[in-house]
Amino acid sequence: MMAPEPVLTSKEDLIPYAFDGTAALSQMPGAVVFPRDAEQVSRLLQWANRERVPIIPRGSGSGLSGGSVPTPGSVVMCLVKLDRVLEVDRKNLTVMVETGATTEAVATAVGAANLFYPPDPGSMKISTIGGNVAENSGGLRGLKYGVTRNYVMGMEVVLPQGEIVWMGNKCVKDVAGYNLKDVFIGSEGTLGVITRVLLKLIPKPAAKKTMLATFAEMEKAAETISAIIAAQIIPCTLEFLDRTTIKCVEDFAHIGLPLDCDAIVLMETDGHAAVVAEESARMEQICRAHGCTSVHVAKDDTEAVQLASARRAAFSALARVAPTTILEDVTVPRSELAQMIRFIQNVAKTDQLRVGVFGHMGDGNLHPTFLTDERNHAEMEKVEKALHKIIEETIRLGGTITGEHGVGLAKKRFLPRQLGETQLRVMRELRRVLDPAGVLNPGKMFD
Amino acid sequence: MMAPEPVLTSKEDLIPYAFDGTAALSQMPGAVVFPRDAEQVSRLLQWANRERVPIIPRGSGSGLSGGSVPTPGSVVMCLVKLDRVLEVDRKNLTVMVETGATTEAVATAVGAANLFYPPDPGSMKISTIGGNVAENSGGLRGLKYGVTRNYVMGMEVVLPQGEIVWMGNKCVKDVAGYNLKDVFIGSEGTLGVITRVLLKLIPKPAAKKTMLATFAEMEKAAETISAIIAAQIIPCTLEFLDRTTIKCVEDFAHIGLPLDCDAIVLMETDGHAAVVAEESARMEQICRAHGCTSVHVAKDDTEAVQLASARRAAFSALARVAPTTILEDVTVPRSELAQMIRFIQNVAKTDQLRVGVFGHMGDGNLHPTFLTDERNHAEMEKVEKALHKIIEETIRLGGTITGEHGVGLAKKRFLPRQLGETQLRVMRELRRVLDPAGVLNPGKMFD
Repeated sequence: MMAPEPVLTSKEDLIPYAFDGTAALSQMPGAVVFPRDAEQVSRLLQWANRERVPIIPRGSGSGLSGGSVPTPGSVVMCLVKLDRVLEVDRKNLTVMVETGATTEAVATAVGAANLFYPPDPGSMKISTIGGNVAENSGGLRGLKYGVTRNYVMGMEVVLPQGEIVWMGNKCVKDVAGYNLKDVFIGSEGTLGVITRVLLKLIPKPAAKKTMLATFAEMEKAAETISAIIAAQIIPCTLEFLDRTTIKCVEDFAHIGLPLDCDAIVLMETDGHAAVVAEESARMEQICRAHGCTSVHVAKDDTEAVQLASARRAAFSALARVAPTTILEDVTVPRSELAQMIRFIQNVAKTDQLRVGVFGHMGDGNLHPTFLTDERNHAEMEKVEKALHKIIEETIRLGGTITGEHGVGLAKKRFLPRQLGETQLRVMRELRRVLDPAGVLNPGKMFD
Repeated sequence: MMAPEPVLTSKEDLIPYAFDGTAALSQMPGAVVFPRDAEQVSRLLQWANRERVPIIPRGSGSGLSGGSVPTPGSVVMCLVKLDRVLEVDRKNLTVMVETGATTEAVATAVGAANLFYPPDPGSMKISTIGGNVAENSGGLRGLKYGVTRNYVMGMEVVLPQGEIVWMGNKCVKDVAGYNLKDVFIGSEGTLGVITRVLLKLIPKPAAKKTMLATFAEMEKAAETISAIIAAQIIPCTLEFLDRTTIKCVEDFAHIGLPLDCDAIVLMETDGHAAVVAEESARMEQICRAHGCTSVHVAKDDTEAVQLASARRAAFSALARVAPTTILEDVTVPRSELAQMIRFIQNVAKTDQLRVGVFGHMGDGNLHPTFLTDERNHAEMEKVEKALHKIIEETIRLGGTITGEHGVGLAKKRFLPRQLGETQLRVMRELRRVLDPAGVLNPGKMFD
């Protein structure tokens, strides 16, 4: 075998690579390898094609759809050693990074040049840029700044049969040939292994204001969000937590959140100081006009970070209170948000399930999180049924089964319902063209 | 034949469909049909697959790479009858339109709802949205607002074998399955026929300021652009005209442009009034610091339109002075702009060719325009050689052979040089998967 060093094969060493951030999914791989450049990735894929060994690419394993969970007998290709930030180009506002650099390392490196890389997935302290690109990760600033896709200008990809290709460039406009780059973004490690990424940067916003509003009824919170968008304000963050989530976060982080409210909305506006002052005043006014019980504006950066931490801690806080947390990721058009939240809460009530709802309200992206126990088969079955109901309602409302976590294994059974047979057929054929032997991340997204 | 009515077949009727906006390319089709819905498009494609007749989709025919020029014996499928603006959704900030609606009709319809669709290709008065999506058209606001791709949230496409699929939705985030939508955007009518498009809208900017600066040397103009970007100002427009173009525009439009300068830079900033005031003052300062000979700020909307019209008239003005105008579309990283302009001017001088250069300076997107005569074979040969040199230099500088006009027939011979064999092979196989009989726009982009 021509696999690159080092290689892990002992059981204890393999255990951490048997799962990712997704609950209730785990499978031991045959081995784990750590390539150090695209050449080594290429040789490993050529070997895998000859020997018909499944290759599972992964970064830090913070994924939330089981996209990097091994298949039996597979070799995990862990890309964290490819972690250099190669070039910050101030003239062209770009940064070139290796795939295993963490999102935070990239944000820090470009911040030092007074530039800004906006995508900030919840796991950004550990998640890798390659993983972000493979999953097209979102974050808390998606409303104003978009998602990972909006920042990828180019990338080096090793195709499943081992060919190394570079797609894209530092040009802000390019229409030469089909846009293959955007197919690889969000392809969840099934079409190629990303080894290097060229990212677009923007000027760092000059000012920022963070606010937290509380509401006695979830409906009022949802109406407030709609009213902010209808007033043509696009803040960088419009996040929310429901009553269950608020309680768990407060128990966990002791931030001083009010426990007598039904919803908390976190708002952040950034940009020119005059715009920030005006937008935050208008948002405060809209919150009050829609019956919020309180609005609190952070007086400085420290307090802003503290308020935002309530939202950032949501998933960890919920994960603490039950042995198994099933994290959902449905997304609906913003106009359908109130309807969708009501539906989820009704399903939980009818089926007597514990669910905490939080998410990117401004994006229509909800993370209903079921608090359960995978050993309780009866309850897990009820959760599964509830998920099906939520998926059906999402599709009925013109939404999508996954806004930012991906399909992987977790949403695979729902994908045909979302896309229909024709699109799935095209996707299947595209995958076969690139990976005729089916060695790259088999069984993920679809069979 | 099950083709939809009306059908044109007489020679006089076919002539207008034998060419598009590209010089020196023309071929009579066998017939022209005008479908009225996706169903008719589908039936026509099914018929074409049975009978092996090439189908050439087109909108208004304003394309600049020969993408809708017929092949012999082909049927042109003209989509201009599908021209309704179906729904402006203020809650979700979207508009749903049929493919044949003009860019201007869409801009006007959403403007009436106080919303904004930013892409504004030069031909927007007549170009269709379907054509804009098929070519991923740019425009004068690309620097700040991006191109057509950045606004397509969903679309109905009839695949080459006749299947009608809908891709995308009104959700601002969606990672369910491969991103096929972005492959169809910019696929130049070779992978499917777009029949309906869902576009993202943004709030209309509250204020705008338009300025025109003149420079005695092109170098100084290029340095000024770089300095504006380096100062982290991203205005919506940074356009320029060289001496030849200025003279042609003035002869044509009598705007009162100064004829004693080497370059004119058109700048436009929009957004919040405070930001606009500040940015325009800083840009004026940067122009002066880099030795401009004059800066003029439009005092009102009428004057702003007049200043911008100098740039908008550039191509028409150049096209007037010579029987044949070969319009180029090379794009380089912004940092290489001065180098690229110098190179083009040197090539023209050495080869004794007349060339006017204008374009989207802020995007690194240049439109060197050769003023020639296709009947003068010796000169056409020199132009062809000059184009080759320009393409080679573009690629050497990390640029692209086409920033916004597309490959079509005009750039087909340069595409392998830009992309390399592996990417071309993947594109070819993708096309074969979708269009095994090769009926849709054959011979365009690549064979």
